[in-house]
Amino acid sequence: MEQVPVQVVSETKSHGGTQGVYGHPSAATGTEMTFSVFVPDRPEGTKLPVLWYLSGLTCTHANVTEKGEFRAACAEAGVILVAPDTSPRGDDVPDDADKAYDFGLGAGFYVDATQEPWARNYRMRSYVESELPELIATIFPADMARQGITGHSMGGHGALTIALRNPGRFRSVSAFAPIVSPLNCPWGDKALGGYLGPDRAAWREYDACALIADGARLPNLLVDQGEADGFLAEQLKTQLLVGACAKAGIEAAIRMQPGYDHSYYFISSFMAEHVAWHAGHLHRG
Amino acid sequence: MEQVPVQVVSETKSHGGTQGVYGHPSAATGTEMTFSVFVPDRPEGTKLPVLWYLSGLTCTHANVTEKGEFRAACAEAGVILVAPDTSPRGDDVPDDADKAYDFGLGAGFYVDATQEPWARNYRMRSYVESELPELIATIFPADMARQGITGHSMGGHGALTIALRNPGRFRSVSAFAPIVSPLNCPWGDKALGGYLGPDRAAWREYDACALIADGARLPNLLVDQGEADGFLAEQLKTQLLVGACAKAGIEAAIRMQPGYDHSYYFISSFMAEHVAWHAGHLHRG
Repeated sequence: MEQVPVQVVSETKSHGGTQGVYGHPSAATGTEMTFSVFVPDRPEGTKLPVLWYLSGLTCTHANVTEKGEFRAACAEAGVILVAPDTSPRGDDVPDDADKAYDFGLGAGFYVDATQEPWARNYRMRSYVESELPELIATIFPADMARQGITGHSMGGHGALTIALRNPGRFRSVSAFAPIVSPLNCPWGDKALGGYLGPDRAAWREYDACALIADGARLPNLLVDQGEADGFLAEQLKTQLLVGACAKAGIEAAIRMQPGYDHSYYFISSFMAEHVAWHAGHLHRG
Repeated sequence: MEQVPVQVVSETKSHGGTQGVYGHPSAATGTEMTFSVFVPDRPEGTKLPVLWYLSGLTCTHANVTEKGEFRAACAEAGVILVAPDTSPRGDDVPDDADKAYDFGLGAGFYVDATQEPWARNYRMRSYVESELPELIATIFPADMARQGITGHSMGGHGALTIALRNPGRFRSVSAFAPIVSPLNCPWGDKALGGYLGPDRAAWREYDACALIADGARLPNLLVDQGEADGFLAEQLKTQLLVGACAKAGIEAAIRMQPGYDHSYYFISSFMAEHVAWHAGHLHRG
């Protein structure tokens, strides 16, 4: 087996498992990347299913790791949770000229950029879709035949689009307050326009609603969306996903949650339910 | 009713309740103080029991509010959780000359300082024992006849000593990795020496083991302590509390937890159990 150069940043006992943070040089992004993995205690030699959590704008692996409240549920259900970063990092990585929160560092949008100066490092699609799964399969007790995926906001967009482009890979797909159609919101205009250029046809593979309209399908779907989320009307547009799923006949539970906003106070409120829902699919058969 | 000048910093829906952060001018400390309160949804007009959580060195209200994972358990049990700050704050508040983490700002030790320049602002005992409870009783749906108290490290010390000095006030007392005897550790030497002066007889009312030896009692006690906690041997010395409780006949469950450290990864692992344990006492009778 090839040596995998992964550095242990920290490994901490928590909730009857081990919360780790790891660093490694990424071939996809050409940078050092950091990610976190929670592994429940288990009988030696056994493998556990994997739930991917993709984070939203401005986040690193750390936000969900500290505030996501997933460990009790993952330990209870026997599910590994992997949380990647949201963009390449480092002094050499180009950032938005105005250091805006919604482009550049912390805002990789899970795309492989084609436009300069972004194309060299901003390859979070390849990183999350290909490179990191191979690494996880190599060094963790992960049963890659049993994967689920979820995410928040930009990470919900990432979860939906990665699942739609990789049929059969995920047994379960969920999201918290996802961006459902970058073709139809200012965040999407800025990010996909910047990373992919003005040809909007090239954006469709990064738009959950467009992918569904073009024939892609999900095995199932659980979405929670706060009704008091300040980004709902202009950026998230949950109803576009409701419509796309209905038209395509995708089994989807898309739940509007009165009073909840866009923060980790919202995410953590529904995290245990999402983990248990994924576990139900991941432990089946 | 006198007007209570409390400013709402934020109120956020979470876990079927409201997580608030509030600011107010404190008469005890002579400064603005910030605290957080989680109030589960409840039938209008009803009051809920209160669990106090006192934080450790370097913390504000925010650490447990973000990382403590108490809300699901508090909502389930119908318990309000109050989290005060750990010291006075502000440009005019004196701090440790070297800005050390274990004295001055973030390190109030829940004492009323008698030494200059600390005596003016460092009055966290009066703040947490008297002023803040009156305020909580006034503006929240809190049943002050049903209170429990817990805390972490320096806050565990605070919880134990406040409960020991106020017999009958708390129906339940617990702690995470508490400093059990400031008379017998470097943190205690520095903090109590600084705030109270060299007369160690004056420290005894701020030392859980000394208070017990001097006749104070607790109604019950639940303590969790990580065996991989780097502060255990030199600062926390859990066995002193085990001995004091045994000698005094205090009903105490003091549990050593293999592999756990001193962080919120440890605290959050056992938080739900502590909340449920308190709720069992608070909802009784």
